[in-house]
Amino acid sequence: MPRTVTASSNSITMRLHAAPDHRVVGSIATAIADAGGVVTAIDVADSSHDRLVVDVTCSSADADHAAELEAAVAAVPGVTVHKVSDRTFLTHLGGVVEVASKVPLKTRDDLSLAYTPGVGRIARALADRPEDVSRLTVKGNSVAVVTDGSAVLGLGNIGPGAALPVMEGKAALFKRFGAINAWPICLDTQDTDEIVRAVELIAPGFGGINLEDIAAPRCFEIEARLRERLDIPVFHDDQHGTAIVALAGLTNALRVVGKRIEDARMVVSGGGAAGTAIVGLLLAAGVRDVVVYDRAGCLVADADGLSPAHAELASRTNPRRVAGDLRTALQGADVFIGVSAPGILPAEWIGEMAPEPIVFAMANPDPEVDPVEASRYAAVVASGRSDFPNQINNVLAFPGVFRGLLDARASTVTITMMLRAATAIAAVVTDAELNPSYIIPTVFHPDVHTAVAAAIAHPEGATP
Amino acid sequence: MPRTVTASSNSITMRLHAAPDHRVVGSIATAIADAGGVVTAIDVADSSHDRLVVDVTCSSADADHAAELEAAVAAVPGVTVHKVSDRTFLTHLGGVVEVASKVPLKTRDDLSLAYTPGVGRIARALADRPEDVSRLTVKGNSVAVVTDGSAVLGLGNIGPGAALPVMEGKAALFKRFGAINAWPICLDTQDTDEIVRAVELIAPGFGGINLEDIAAPRCFEIEARLRERLDIPVFHDDQHGTAIVALAGLTNALRVVGKRIEDARMVVSGGGAAGTAIVGLLLAAGVRDVVVYDRAGCLVADADGLSPAHAELASRTNPRRVAGDLRTALQGADVFIGVSAPGILPAEWIGEMAPEPIVFAMANPDPEVDPVEASRYAAVVASGRSDFPNQINNVLAFPGVFRGLLDARASTVTITMMLRAATAIAAVVTDAELNPSYIIPTVFHPDVHTAVAAAIAHPEGATP
Repeated sequence: MPRTVTASSNSITMRLHAAPDHRVVGSIATAIADAGGVVTAIDVADSSHDRLVVDVTCSSADADHAAELEAAVAAVPGVTVHKVSDRTFLTHLGGVVEVASKVPLKTRDDLSLAYTPGVGRIARALADRPEDVSRLTVKGNSVAVVTDGSAVLGLGNIGPGAALPVMEGKAALFKRFGAINAWPICLDTQDTDEIVRAVELIAPGFGGINLEDIAAPRCFEIEARLRERLDIPVFHDDQHGTAIVALAGLTNALRVVGKRIEDARMVVSGGGAAGTAIVGLLLAAGVRDVVVYDRAGCLVADADGLSPAHAELASRTNPRRVAGDLRTALQGADVFIGVSAPGILPAEWIGEMAPEPIVFAMANPDPEVDPVEASRYAAVVASGRSDFPNQINNVLAFPGVFRGLLDARASTVTITMMLRAATAIAAVVTDAELNPSYIIPTVFHPDVHTAVAAAIAHPEGATP
Repeated sequence: MPRTVTASSNSITMRLHAAPDHRVVGSIATAIADAGGVVTAIDVADSSHDRLVVDVTCSSADADHAAELEAAVAAVPGVTVHKVSDRTFLTHLGGVVEVASKVPLKTRDDLSLAYTPGVGRIARALADRPEDVSRLTVKGNSVAVVTDGSAVLGLGNIGPGAALPVMEGKAALFKRFGAINAWPICLDTQDTDEIVRAVELIAPGFGGINLEDIAAPRCFEIEARLRERLDIPVFHDDQHGTAIVALAGLTNALRVVGKRIEDARMVVSGGGAAGTAIVGLLLAAGVRDVVVYDRAGCLVADADGLSPAHAELASRTNPRRVAGDLRTALQGADVFIGVSAPGILPAEWIGEMAPEPIVFAMANPDPEVDPVEASRYAAVVASGRSDFPNQINNVLAFPGVFRGLLDARASTVTITMMLRAATAIAAVVTDAELNPSYIIPTVFHPDVHTAVAAAIAHPEGATP
């Protein structure tokens, strides 16, 4: 795939000193564009008779490209580069979340209500009636974002310290879209028993647990054991958030092409955390024919050499016992959902799927197939990328899911709740709005998060 | 001690409906005062030709007294009590801390900087250079407030859930006075090994650990083992915060009476967490003669039947081998510091101490002796109470201590740092301000927290 500037992940701001020439701003912008960068802002920050100070913000494809943009600008006659700031790094200085007091602390009176001696009355009341803890403390509205750093984004096993900024970002999104107080908990172990015990031990202060970036297959056991032990909901977003949003998108994609979910033949590429959860939710949604393809080939029940997790997956899928490579699996399939690896799906193979195929190429950061290429063959294309329509973005699910769980004081999260959440997300897209390039709302849609929360908390009121 | 209204811990707001009589507001206030309550606010919230709506906020001694105040108001002719709200409980609804995003999250651009894909660059950078974690994440400015709920305020072992509001309040104070992001961690165990391991496991996301309300003697081992295992500072505030502020007050009390710390005979009542830490800090400050009194009597080295913690304490103190009860220990002593139990010190015994005795009666919530009674005999009296001068309040120490530790990226907290913190607090009180009723600054003093932080972080610049 050609190098492209994606989102603003590599966004730099350059402070330039330039000769006071009214054409220099245009020259700077042109130089950046010629070098493949995207200018997002230019400001003349200062102006004197002998010099302009110009701040240019632009996006590059990566760090090397950013250096090229800097060189291109420096080559413009009369221009020197004074300073280069990386906006991403600037954003993360000191972290992206903070704690705030909800109550004023200006006077002794304030302190004696929020802290001693007044808080002693609250503590005593909770000792007498522990069930009041959700009402009288932050536990009624808090979630722990828990990782061991073993499967972080596309980076793999980078450990708890390096994973922290990702957990912080997650917590910031919980607040922004779910009005939830989430705090990052990065565990210094990758031992299943220790992770389970640690989360059990910190549970008293939280209303829910969001597991994040914990590698398969350990994540399955960790989630299962914690669900058994805790009386608060436990939700591994990489599994179920992905599954919920994928199902929501799929629901609408099927609306677009006019197929029923029970009749569709599906191929899921990737038998890890996301793929396993997607399959589970698809089956619960009524899918009857799904084949899982993992790098060793299609998973067939009772095959030799399968890991326990894959054997489990195989036993629940592939009724026609399709065997072989991905191309074989795709023959006549209606839907491809990829949560695997980049570039494993040549676009032409989509042409061998059923008429009006649906392709969700969700490998992160680079999908199984270029969405633009896939669009030449598929009726509906979705991916995880923000620079292409139909972004399957977990942010559509986890804030509303936990908002609903906390509002309902739920002690567990069930697959039925997840189905309702997927339905709610899909339903935000009205018939009038629905088209092949709009099967999923944006995370900024004013209704989506409350719709998800309502579907989780108030099942009677949600459309099934 | 007679029942008194203390601080605003039992503060209620009553919404009253009254006949539209201009004298009724005075009658309401009088009724409350006659019944022993303290009116802190009266508002006429609404007024019509047939009715006034009056909101009265008042403090009571306890819940029973609050009921008496309500009855007294209801007895005023023309007045009915419409609703009673407890301000303390209202303050704590939903908890007193929250999480906030430090960065805007309004656009896709914002998201791609704070979260994916931009945050992936931060994670990768930290995987390459882990030492940047304090600069690029919240770890540079975060503290875990950790408890097992085994020794909460004056309530004892109430467990982690009931302890949560106290930990929240602590976190709110960390932010207010130290600009620190502190998060409550309430552990569902009282096993020393499990507590140590849990804190080790969560340490990657925090720049410091504040242990809180963990019972002696387990707290000593827990703190010691964590200090050995972690590369971030570990500080049990009930031990060392109390000790720092007590030493600060003592330093100034000795200034008032003109005695030297090396010459003073001291008695510390209470061989628990606070008492042990106070003794340790006094010895480090140059005290040569301190006797520890615990409920079984004065601790004498090599006595039979002492617990390991008390034997350790005894071995470091009581050079004159004073034995017996508290009265015996106080004969000719210059200083009494109590962190023990209410009412164990008859005021007259203070008259048997050395001339110009100093009495710090810090048992919480009721001191060893009524400070007013003690004032009849002592030159300087201090307590933990906010309704008496010279409040020994840990809030003077822990925010500045951790601020300094975080600023210095310290990996440990040492007794020398604690001595400097105590000196800094004491030095905030100038010679012109110093008097027997002002030996300790208020927590709202504009200089005290930064002075403590500077003393911790920049020893060369601090006055020794």
